[in-house]
Amino acid sequence: MARSLLCRAAFQLSGATARLPASRFYSQTEAEPLTVKQENGGIRRVILNNPKKRNALSLSMLESLRENILADVDSDDLRVIIISAKGPVFSSGHDLKELTSAHGQEHHANVFHTCAEVMGIIQDLPVPVIAMVNGVATAAGCQLVASCDIAVVTEKSTFATPGVNVGLFCSTPAVAIGRAVPRKVAMEMLFTGAPISAQEALLHGLVSKVVPEERLEEETLAIAKRVCQASRPVVALGKATFQRQMSQGRDAAYAIASKVMVDNLALRDGQEGIQAFIEKRKPVWSHKAEKAHD
Amino acid sequence: MARSLLCRAAFQLSGATARLPASRFYSQTEAEPLTVKQENGGIRRVILNNPKKRNALSLSMLESLRENILADVDSDDLRVIIISAKGPVFSSGHDLKELTSAHGQEHHANVFHTCAEVMGIIQDLPVPVIAMVNGVATAAGCQLVASCDIAVVTEKSTFATPGVNVGLFCSTPAVAIGRAVPRKVAMEMLFTGAPISAQEALLHGLVSKVVPEERLEEETLAIAKRVCQASRPVVALGKATFQRQMSQGRDAAYAIASKVMVDNLALRDGQEGIQAFIEKRKPVWSHKAEKAHD
Amino acid sequence: MARSLLCRAAFQLSGATARLPASRFYSQTEAEPLTVKQENGGIRRVILNNPKKRNALSLSMLESLRENILADVDSDDLRVIIISAKGPVFSSGHDLKELTSAHGQEHHANVFHTCAEVMGIIQDLPVPVIAMVNGVATAAGCQLVASCDIAVVTEKSTFATPGVNVGLFCSTPAVAIGRAVPRKVAMEMLFTGAPISAQEALLHGLVSKVVPEERLEEETLAIAKRVCQASRPVVALGKATFQRQMSQGRDAAYAIASKVMVDNLALRDGQEGIQAFIEKRKPVWSHKAEKAHD
Repeated sequence: MARSLLCRAAFQLSGATARLPASRFYSQTEAEPLTVKQENGGIRRVILNNPKKRNALSLSMLESLRENILADVDSDDLRVIIISAKGPVFSSGHDLKELTSAHGQEHHANVFHTCAEVMGIIQDLPVPVIAMVNGVATAAGCQLVASCDIAVVTEKSTFATPGVNVGLFCSTPAVAIGRAVPRKVAMEMLFTGAPISAQEALLHGLVSKVVPEERLEEETLAIAKRVCQASRPVVALGKATFQRQMSQGRDAAYAIASKVMVDNLALRDGQEGIQAFIEKRKPVWSHKAEKAHD
Repeated sequence: MARSLLCRAAFQLSGATARLPASRFYSQTEAEPLTVKQENGGIRRVILNNPKKRNALSLSMLESLRENILADVDSDDLRVIIISAKGPVFSSGHDLKELTSAHGQEHHANVFHTCAEVMGIIQDLPVPVIAMVNGVATAAGCQLVASCDIAVVTEKSTFATPGVNVGLFCSTPAVAIGRAVPRKVAMEMLFTGAPISAQEALLHGLVSKVVPEERLEEETLAIAKRVCQASRPVVALGKATFQRQMSQGRDAAYAIASKVMVDNLALRDGQEGIQAFIEKRKPVWSHKAEKAHD
Repeated sequence: MARSLLCRAAFQLSGATARLPASRFYSQTEAEPLTVKQENGGIRRVILNNPKKRNALSLSMLESLRENILADVDSDDLRVIIISAKGPVFSSGHDLKELTSAHGQEHHANVFHTCAEVMGIIQDLPVPVIAMVNGVATAAGCQLVASCDIAVVTEKSTFATPGVNVGLFCSTPAVAIGRAVPRKVAMEMLFTGAPISAQEALLHGLVSKVVPEERLEEETLAIAKRVCQASRPVVALGKATFQRQMSQGRDAAYAIASKVMVDNLALRDGQEGIQAFIEKRKPVWSHKAEKAHD
């Protein structure tokens, strides 16, 4: 209920931005704020807002991320999520104070399980997730950037997996980073803990775009708005299919994707898109995952 | 029969180029020309020749591609295929007019099945296939470039998967593109539909070489001729093994490839190559997939 | 026994470098020297030292590599291995004289099996292996560079898989190279045999760093020393986990890696690292794969 109110409120404000402190989570985790805004064009902004703690991905921050990413995820009004952060550090990764022996193995297991779950949710979500990064992203913070579908970052941003230096090898970040960049790049990051620059991150596929700091918002929003112009069920089907086919061999991947193309065409928005193209007009999307009735 | 005549004719013209309209297909598909030439050095040129329709990969174009790629594929006279296109668009992908609901799901399924089949054939062929691109390659056109073994492109060429804009997510092109470039590059292309430049395509591994327009033919032919200097069965074994081992884990891949190395050495051309190297002379290939008799 | 003496000797020389001809192997293979030194900071140097034969990976060279890489591999005193070479050629790959039909298929099979074994050992070793390259690396020599965890190379270094020119397609090198660089880059190298430059190798992920020749030692040692500052069992666990999870799908990979993170924290050095971080002091590693007693 809190969830649906959150988003309903957002959409009542026509043309304006609803600034919605995720109050439900504040009560749990006063020290771990996460700001969520949703604009009526379909863009949800999720902002890590604990700069004093370098936006550490504490267990409560991870739970808050999970809740706020998943909130009203099937609503037509949600089309894209942008994850950004306040302060000079995008995220420093896990909160090491939670990982002392005093917290016990069960707690440790819960932290890593929840983190992997959030990273998986981002990739399995029916809408694209964009990381908007202006600063340092390390360890699980770097994993978060690697897990997003798109990442727009400023020139001063850097990326590292320095866990090896504190005796905790970044093995879970390596799952996401090892699938984003060439193996040798991942290995050097993991073994040395040394940061790579935004340009190196771009070169190797860890991020999608490097922009000057003053244009970060503009460039990220341009991509987000472009995503919002597409049909929601078409994007959802495409994203899910990409994840699914990429885990298969080529022939199995083509079998999956070819069937999906036929299903996509059978969607109301699939046929509307083709018709609009042929009639040289702008398509009018239903954004409903419904079959066309022909 | 038409097929074997086609190639026999080509080889009767010593030193010259046989310009062979693929007449068999013309009769079926008058509006979808595909020009095929085969030079006597072993280079087959397959040229998309429907610039008015932006070289769309209509079903008949795909069928024509399949036939002309496969024609006499086991002939010693074929060593490499170059796929290029007439006009400013390399290929715009599927013909959307074939994808309206009026054509029915069975037709749609046939289009995507045939397309995936052509892409698979290119990778499974015993000779390398080179894309020579001078212009725009979008959707299944971009998939075609991604599926070729090598791609030489001009500086002005661009690559995009804009299906999302017409309500048809490029899920089948994503099979080839997702295996050619880093995941974030593929995702941004797929979600935004925005084009990437030739240089970006090179940076991310979608193409092999970017050259000035006036040197496109020369540079592509230089690679093709280099391929023609090698032994046909050695290249065929190497290409097939590459595809096969890449779908396996490292240890299984080494088991496959190590056995192939021994088989390769047992070929007549395998032993000829080693002997020629030791004797510091040029090898004389048989181009026959025969064992050496020792 | 010869092995343990080798390393014990190295550590008796405090502050100095033990220059240890791998005498055991010399007796077998007088013409195939491999120089091994181990410094007391934990860095083992393995130097291909047969420049007259272009440091060919003959069977005896491969066996010598295997032995010298594996020697005392579980000793706390070993933390990183650097493989380099004397002369202008890093390694030209297999010794073609061993691959004539006169040697017989059993010998051929032994060569490729041993080569694949060495490449696998490098990746499965509990310590990182760095290739330090100043010159040409071709065929199995290029495979060796691709198989190392990190590769630091000079600007003049080049990389190629020219086997196709001598009738022996580089199918086993392709296992390592195809997993290091984009598919199109690998294909062009394999089909044409043409070399790529150090910068191209960097661009495509085949190597980690390109440096001027006069800084090769310094830059490589800086990375090696950085590795030596980390806890040995933490690095070992991280390296093994990386290899293991990368061969799995995302969810299975996270299940493996999440469990490993908990195990890592349970290590004595895992808890020491976290405590040192919280107490803002330098960690003191035990380098023992022991559980913390809490």
